[in-house]
Amino acid sequence: MPELRKDPVSDRWVIISTDRARRPTDFIRRPVPVEASSRFCPFCEGQESKTPPEVLAYRNGSAPNTPGWQLRVVPNKYPVLGIEGDLEREGEGLFDKMQGIGAHEVIVESPGHVISMADLSEESIKLTLFAFRDRVRDLRNDFRLRYVLLFKNHGEGAGATSEHTHSQLIALPVVPKRVQEELEVCERYFKFKERCVFCDIVRQESRSGSRIVTETDEFVSLAPYAARFPFETWIMPRHHASHYEEASDQQLANLAWILRSTLRKMDKVLERPAYNLLVHTTPLQEGACPYYHWHIEIIPNLTRVAGFEMGTGFYINPTPPEESAQFLRDAGLS
Amino acid sequence: MPELRKDPVSDRWVIISTDRARRPTDFIRRPVPVEASSRFCPFCEGQESKTPPEVLAYRNGSAPNTPGWQLRVVPNKYPVLGIEGDLEREGEGLFDKMQGIGAHEVIVESPGHVISMADLSEESIKLTLFAFRDRVRDLRNDFRLRYVLLFKNHGEGAGATSEHTHSQLIALPVVPKRVQEELEVCERYFKFKERCVFCDIVRQESRSGSRIVTETDEFVSLAPYAARFPFETWIMPRHHASHYEEASDQQLANLAWILRSTLRKMDKVLERPAYNLLVHTTPLQEGACPYYHWHIEIIPNLTRVAGFEMGTGFYINPTPPEESAQFLRDAGLS
Repeated sequence: MPELRKDPVSDRWVIISTDRARRPTDFIRRPVPVEASSRFCPFCEGQESKTPPEVLAYRNGSAPNTPGWQLRVVPNKYPVLGIEGDLEREGEGLFDKMQGIGAHEVIVESPGHVISMADLSEESIKLTLFAFRDRVRDLRNDFRLRYVLLFKNHGEGAGATSEHTHSQLIALPVVPKRVQEELEVCERYFKFKERCVFCDIVRQESRSGSRIVTETDEFVSLAPYAARFPFETWIMPRHHASHYEEASDQQLANLAWILRSTLRKMDKVLERPAYNLLVHTTPLQEGACPYYHWHIEIIPNLTRVAGFEMGTGFYINPTPPEESAQFLRDAGLS
Repeated sequence: MPELRKDPVSDRWVIISTDRARRPTDFIRRPVPVEASSRFCPFCEGQESKTPPEVLAYRNGSAPNTPGWQLRVVPNKYPVLGIEGDLEREGEGLFDKMQGIGAHEVIVESPGHVISMADLSEESIKLTLFAFRDRVRDLRNDFRLRYVLLFKNHGEGAGATSEHTHSQLIALPVVPKRVQEELEVCERYFKFKERCVFCDIVRQESRSGSRIVTETDEFVSLAPYAARFPFETWIMPRHHASHYEEASDQQLANLAWILRSTLRKMDKVLERPAYNLLVHTTPLQEGACPYYHWHIEIIPNLTRVAGFEMGTGFYINPTPPEESAQFLRDAGLS
């Protein structure tokens, strides 16, 4: 069972994998090629027995773990957290730890061996967004869990180890530090202004237009004012919404359009970059929250984080977000 | 002049380089080879005219910006912040920004084209540590500046763009978020225990020994309990010390020994990895601080940070620190 340990200097939690410890020789630089299309892929239709049994699938009547699906969700074969057991919080001298309880699942977005989410149909992307919602709704029934991070690593440069288009979720027994920080900052803004900061951002950015990538009635895709990375892009609901899992079918259909449009623009302008995508939403066990607004962050893997960023949490962005947004707007795809 | 912008959702500051904006084509993957030894190197002795004029050098009587030095500090030719001007804090609707005022300097650690700090003599490493101290003492006279980060990116994988062994410093007009967080957590610990958490860590770890890499009378080199990365290693003064720049000559000589020993062990066990090294110390304008303890963090570049880490600030470490420490201890170099 992995262990969750807290750093007493920063209050940062770390997952320490004690089962499958890696030895120094595992790190010596042997470039691992991304699985080529000709190689065996456990995510392709027909290979259902090569993954752990599915926890969710959208199928037209076929039996579980057989062909005939549009989307499958399976536990990660090498999970970073285990779902069975108790947290067993305890001290170790001045240090704090608990058992590494949580869920780690893979959302396989297509039965065919498609590599980029941008190449999926709007319908397939919509089903992925539905699966995100369905899995969070299921996991929030487990009261040991406090947060679910939905994310995607696309391309080897962004940490993907399989090329078949997929997303992941990790459900955690603590609210992570980054999310807790955003919650606190947004709550402070709300107490001062009695408005949600994200709602204010949507209004100001939509009016000014200089950092907008694309818009719909329901969503705004934009380069954030203080973007950490070149071409960092956020997609936010236009109207206040604290929990992703409360989005309606119609909203998620609208989101599928703007997400596909944004990814296609990036693929065109940046020549199919590796990227990370993540969903930030309100913690599972909280009620409707007036100050926090769920959103998607997309971060192309173009620059390297080095000593300065690690030491400060400050980022250096060589491309102003106004220019990133304009390049994406000018890509001319809808 | 670059701009400092604050993200209103996370209170995170970002440096936006507006001068030398990078266009999408700058990012298309063209691998940049590390400068080969046969290529021209502006950091080598004899090439002093190819860098901006030095701000500090240790020389045996030769004239500034000529050969005959052991160590040189020069402004970065492509600084991320500019030293001239006022902060000019202002709003932009709901957003906050200021001018990108600060210093960005390069510490050239050797007149010869040595690639790894681990291959320098103990004397050269001591001079580097002296230069760190001398530059911070000089920069703290500039009251616009609140923090100096001393750091090193070693190897292309860790963000280095020159192979000649060097460190960098960036002086900032705000205390960075990561440091502010550590200060707050350590202050809370101090209020609760009336002891410095770092002093407690040194005592507990030195007694247990399982995460110790090496020790001297003055310093401890160890794998932190909640290490974010495989083979992450911290070096801490054994006795309480809040400001790096107050260290004595004798302490820095002792530090040179343990730093060289630690880097040589890493080079042996991990086959000369790329790494980042950084110094965390108390902000410039603060007096002696009972709850914060300066330290060095060394992070070999072995794993990739991806969507999960970006979204949560949680890290997944596949190598328990007890095992990292043992591999380094067993490397058998002093």
